[in-house]
Amino acid sequence: MTKRTLIRNGTVVTPEAVERADVLIEDETIAAVGSALSAPPGARVVDARGLLVLPGLIDPHVHLREPGGEHKEDFTSGTCAALAGGFTTVLAMPNTRPPITSGETLAQALALGASKAVCDFGLFVGATAENATEVAALENAVGLKLYMGSSTGSLLVADLAGQLTHFERYPGVIAVHAEDEEAVAYFAARGQRRPPLCAALAVARALALAEHFQRRVHVCHVSTAHEVALIRDAKSRGVPVTCEVTPHHLFLTAADEVRLGPLGRMNPPLRSQEDVEPLWANLDVVDCLATDHAPHTLEEKRSPTPPAGVPGLEAALPLLLTAVHDGKLSLREGIRLTSAGPAIIYGLARKGRIAPGYDADLTLVDPDAEWAIGDRPFFTKCGWSPFEGRKVKGRVEQVFLRGQEVHAHGEILVQPGFGRPVVISHSR
Amino acid sequence: MTKRTLIRNGTVVTPEAVERADVLIEDETIAAVGSALSAPPGARVVDARGLLVLPGLIDPHVHLREPGGEHKEDFTSGTCAALAGGFTTVLAMPNTRPPITSGETLAQALALGASKAVCDFGLFVGATAENATEVAALENAVGLKLYMGSSTGSLLVADLAGQLTHFERYPGVIAVHAEDEEAVAYFAARGQRRPPLCAALAVARALALAEHFQRRVHVCHVSTAHEVALIRDAKSRGVPVTCEVTPHHLFLTAADEVRLGPLGRMNPPLRSQEDVEPLWANLDVVDCLATDHAPHTLEEKRSPTPPAGVPGLEAALPLLLTAVHDGKLSLREGIRLTSAGPAIIYGLARKGRIAPGYDADLTLVDPDAEWAIGDRPFFTKCGWSPFEGRKVKGRVEQVFLRGQEVHAHGEILVQPGFGRPVVISHSR
Repeated sequence: MTKRTLIRNGTVVTPEAVERADVLIEDETIAAVGSALSAPPGARVVDARGLLVLPGLIDPHVHLREPGGEHKEDFTSGTCAALAGGFTTVLAMPNTRPPITSGETLAQALALGASKAVCDFGLFVGATAENATEVAALENAVGLKLYMGSSTGSLLVADLAGQLTHFERYPGVIAVHAEDEEAVAYFAARGQRRPPLCAALAVARALALAEHFQRRVHVCHVSTAHEVALIRDAKSRGVPVTCEVTPHHLFLTAADEVRLGPLGRMNPPLRSQEDVEPLWANLDVVDCLATDHAPHTLEEKRSPTPPAGVPGLEAALPLLLTAVHDGKLSLREGIRLTSAGPAIIYGLARKGRIAPGYDADLTLVDPDAEWAIGDRPFFTKCGWSPFEGRKVKGRVEQVFLRGQEVHAHGEILVQPGFGRPVVISHSR
Repeated sequence: MTKRTLIRNGTVVTPEAVERADVLIEDETIAAVGSALSAPPGARVVDARGLLVLPGLIDPHVHLREPGGEHKEDFTSGTCAALAGGFTTVLAMPNTRPPITSGETLAQALALGASKAVCDFGLFVGATAENATEVAALENAVGLKLYMGSSTGSLLVADLAGQLTHFERYPGVIAVHAEDEEAVAYFAARGQRRPPLCAALAVARALALAEHFQRRVHVCHVSTAHEVALIRDAKSRGVPVTCEVTPHHLFLTAADEVRLGPLGRMNPPLRSQEDVEPLWANLDVVDCLATDHAPHTLEEKRSPTPPAGVPGLEAALPLLLTAVHDGKLSLREGIRLTSAGPAIIYGLARKGRIAPGYDADLTLVDPDAEWAIGDRPFFTKCGWSPFEGRKVKGRVEQVFLRGQEVHAHGEILVQPGFGRPVVISHSR
């Protein structure tokens, strides 16, 4: 029997419009969007009066730490954090232990995720010096993650030859951690931690490779004016490049690192106002928001050698909605960055839009609810946020994933295994 | 007593205009430019009827091979070739034996040049892994030559740290041989000789460094569409970048290398039509023509391991004038590329313009003379040209350098030592 849900009286937000509309769900799929839809017999009716109905958010860059880092996060805790934050789909990075760098490790991680995740998910495969041919054939990865500079984990392809080989062969999206390893080492030896030039050098190289081989390159966590300028110009030349920004690079600056200490440390690091402002000013060049959710325990972060990375899934949407309230971006643009944007990049054909035929992934938020990050307990296993205590306006109230109510008012309503691997429809 | 010369009835060409005008020279300097100037008493009158009066050409990229390579070329033979080709000023590269990489070797080479050159000249100093601080202080070099990829000679700074240090410190123009050494090696191992990507990668990096440190970077011998696109966009972003093209990359293609064999081999190599056409189509992005005059003996070129490089000083202007006849560029643009263009880049304040107060460097050409490259014996010691036998239209008839007639109809009229080091007026 077809299960039907009518979400009524909400304000539906898409990149194209913000309008009062009802959404009719049949089983896992959106059946209709329109004004004053009538409830079919037996349909559940959800009153969304006063709420925004957003496309279920997609986070194209998270670290779920499983396998190998389950004390920081696992598929269940990380995807619970996603649903708590309004995200219905996450794309997870391969820098686990062991890293996901082969068909075999990818299949294992996909199976693990399918048994433990509560939201839908996709997995990246990681580039190594040796695996260019193997990974190019893996159609069940959402993309290739190429670490041009080192970060958490062992994945690194710092030399040009290795990078070039991947660009030569990989037919899908190459998501680059763009910090030049030689530059990182150069500045580290001089007491400087990954200054902006490290990113610019790597982006310049990645763009040259993408332009030459006509490969789709996605620049992760853009954090500097220089990167944005390079990407803007490359786009205008027709280079198939996309990019993401993180909430921490938008909502924190290097000044916050002083206050936060190791809890404000990530790769690339927080930047000065001089770089943060151009990110806001050039959001039209940015294709999506990505939390780069990178949980580490407080114990690890407070150790003498704190790892880089901060969690982000549970703070991103409230921060974004607050920025909308503050007039820093439009609601439509915020939604583009968190739904259609990432869906288009990674070819998530059934995701990212509120339209008939799409997965019924919907995030209902109360745009006027005022609270502080941390008021709701964190689902992320690491249990902290660099934004803790920050006053925000806008709160996730209900989340539907493929037609199923999966989150209500801070409670996760489904069991591990409800999440499914995403269907990738990229032309390769 | 003031020596005066009136060049009468010629067609004076500047980047701004092509017009009938007379040029009055007093001693070394242009005193007046105008129509129907009257000859002062005692003035020599030169009838330039039917001739173009060009600013003495400036070649910002030559290899004079001295010291250490005098069997290929020396200051006298190379600068004779310059005057024969209509060039009154040449800027010579530091990849000699020993290379010019210090204040001491620079002073020695300047003294050698001053005693042997017949045209005016400037010298580059070469970057090494160790000399960033020393060369940054050398005010008598026209610029720093930084070999990002290897070419003739031992100069090479292939690693990012070394390159970065020079960009950090050098206050003048950094002229880059932009071929990425790692890429050159990568492709060499696969039987490919310096394909276009080698250049694009190095240019991308050089531009990122220049943009970051706000240093003036000059990209030598641009040969690909990709480089031109990167430089165009960098210029539009305000990056202080300039670039040059060579006659061989404009007038020959990879197809000619088949015919020429080792005589068509240089770094970067000849390119396919796909890259040559965009050079012509984007001359507005190009700041100057540079011959990259790089003589090697025929014996060397025909050896089993032929060195890279071809001579260019005696063919460049006839080729350019022929291209003007063929409608491939305007005469004014050709003159911009060979006079004001290089003068502005390297701060040669008294050079590159036909205007009162400037050095009286003038090249008189018969635009309609048809001949073939090689009809006049070569002055370059290597005695050959990749353009030999090529039919051209336009011939150098007379050259004045600082008011002195230095070349007439293929004969050099001055003795070694007439040439002087250029005065560099760059704000540093």
